[in-house]
Amino acid sequence: MSKTVIALDCMGGDHAPEEIVKGAVYAANEDKDMLIKLVGKEERIYEELSKYQYNKDKIEVVNATEVIETGEPPVAAVRTKRDSSLVKCMYMVRKGEADAMVSAGSTGANLVGGHVIIGRMKGVERPPLAPLIPTAKGASLLIDCGANVDARASHLVQFAKMGSVYMENIVGIKNPKVAIVNIGAEEEKGNALVKETYPLLEQLEEINFIGNIEARDIPKGKADVIVCDAFVGNVILKLYEGVADVLIKKIKGSMMSSLKTKIGALLIKKSLKKTLKGFSLEEHGGAPLLGLNGLLVKTHGSSKYIEIKNSILQCAAFNESDINNKFKEKLSLESKED
Amino acid sequence: MSKTVIALDCMGGDHAPEEIVKGAVYAANEDKDMLIKLVGKEERIYEELSKYQYNKDKIEVVNATEVIETGEPPVAAVRTKRDSSLVKCMYMVRKGEADAMVSAGSTGANLVGGHVIIGRMKGVERPPLAPLIPTAKGASLLIDCGANVDARASHLVQFAKMGSVYMENIVGIKNPKVAIVNIGAEEEKGNALVKETYPLLEQLEEINFIGNIEARDIPKGKADVIVCDAFVGNVILKLYEGVADVLIKKIKGSMMSSLKTKIGALLIKKSLKKTLKGFSLEEHGGAPLLGLNGLLVKTHGSSKYIEIKNSILQCAAFNESDINNKFKEKLSLESKED
Repeated sequence: MSKTVIALDCMGGDHAPEEIVKGAVYAANEDKDMLIKLVGKEERIYEELSKYQYNKDKIEVVNATEVIETGEPPVAAVRTKRDSSLVKCMYMVRKGEADAMVSAGSTGANLVGGHVIIGRMKGVERPPLAPLIPTAKGASLLIDCGANVDARASHLVQFAKMGSVYMENIVGIKNPKVAIVNIGAEEEKGNALVKETYPLLEQLEEINFIGNIEARDIPKGKADVIVCDAFVGNVILKLYEGVADVLIKKIKGSMMSSLKTKIGALLIKKSLKKTLKGFSLEEHGGAPLLGLNGLLVKTHGSSKYIEIKNSILQCAAFNESDINNKFKEKLSLESKED
Repeated sequence: MSKTVIALDCMGGDHAPEEIVKGAVYAANEDKDMLIKLVGKEERIYEELSKYQYNKDKIEVVNATEVIETGEPPVAAVRTKRDSSLVKCMYMVRKGEADAMVSAGSTGANLVGGHVIIGRMKGVERPPLAPLIPTAKGASLLIDCGANVDARASHLVQFAKMGSVYMENIVGIKNPKVAIVNIGAEEEKGNALVKETYPLLEQLEEINFIGNIEARDIPKGKADVIVCDAFVGNVILKLYEGVADVLIKKIKGSMMSSLKTKIGALLIKKSLKKTLKGFSLEEHGGAPLLGLNGLLVKTHGSSKYIEIKNSILQCAAFNESDINNKFKEKLSLESKED
């Protein structure tokens, strides 16, 4: 397999371009056969690059004069800002000048551009956005958290299959457990969508379907692939973040409440920091938008260099493991792409 | 207003009847004008009561020979076990022998029996189950978390009104902020249900509608009344519990990882315990099923006596504040009940 080429949107995210470029430098210094194309305002990118020693064989700069801001209406932004770093990355993937791309920019613009510019694999009804979320056991894939609200049962069936391939091949979980989010453990529970989807998932021999999962069991790591529609997925993803944030703030507050607790806090600080890092959403890299003609990894807007680096390395693994062909097999699609 | 009579299902929940009876004893010793009718196997109830000193004017025992177990199919259980403690409580409310009831028993049986036996207030389309959830600022009402999946926009509008009345009159939040759960802060976002409901809520002059709330802002306490369909509400409620459980377990684990951290843990233990208690779902008492001809408060299956006591006291406040008449005003219903 040839070298993986990754287009990196250097102007998207809260810490662009500083942390994005730094992430690329760190990724380039890892032992992976890849080329990272840094896309954005070239003078800014070179300015950042000048701060580091890096492997020059693995980094190239591609100029893009425009920037899509977080608040911009996605469709209009993607349509009009043809020379933005984000849109340019997408065309590079579309034309085969890159195999994959990473962006910390606007989620909306990434989803819209992913569909419209990069395009869906033939036979994929709705490409899902599928972040890894931390659990007591490691991480689970939450599929879908994208913009596919009002999903149909056939979409959820594809999510289950693609999620299963992803967890097995990228994360390395053998025979991953697949479950559908529901409001009870019993088969007969649920809203219309879940009731329609459940028997379809139960019939699939190619995935390890374990039935319903209640939201309380998601953080316990009861399933490896968590299937739901994007509205529910979005609620799960954001509530994870919200509950953890508030709880950690409260716990830290309680540790600062007296001299005694402050001394206690000093003693546990290092160990606690390590634990909390392991339970952070950022720790697991970006979320792939699956089922496109190429790979798009969307990282958090707040991404620092570590997450950018991890997302770039995730792209390298994606190409190595030939995921898109495995999707085709699992989805029983023809090998031709549209 | 006359004395509030509360029927207590003494046989429902993981710690029945011990903790249920103990909760009644503690509630009876508070200075509230009420009568608690303890419903269940009378010999067991008297056995528990014999352990305590209590105000005999405020406690009565009503025999019920059957028990509905947690796993039983709700409809069949409610229909066939007429002499169960749960069904008996419901008939007492229906017949006016009690104003309100509290149960830690099967959620399904509570919801079914609430609708079928106690009955809806005239004009209420779907009685919502509305627990208080902890936030950084105190608590918010999550409405609906019941069995009303596949809700319609008109249901959500009623939830918003009833939730607003409840927070203002029971919890004492002046002009409570009402928001609808969505996947973005912008008005145009959402699934079909939310898009249909949003403009209806915006038009209401009688509530303080502040727009969409993203799940990450729920734990921050950005809104007092969180409106959503029961599927989403159930996911929110259970994920709250799940994330907090796993995170607290991980934090405790990190505190036990070395001698140094163990000493640190000893110093912060008391303060931390207080903080975590304040962020626990149990702390806020049970969840009312609103819009019935009487009040049903469903408490957690795992309820200990404190939650039972708080739920009983919540019923006393419910009657005092004449909530059901306030619902009728807000929902513009006739005063006649069906």
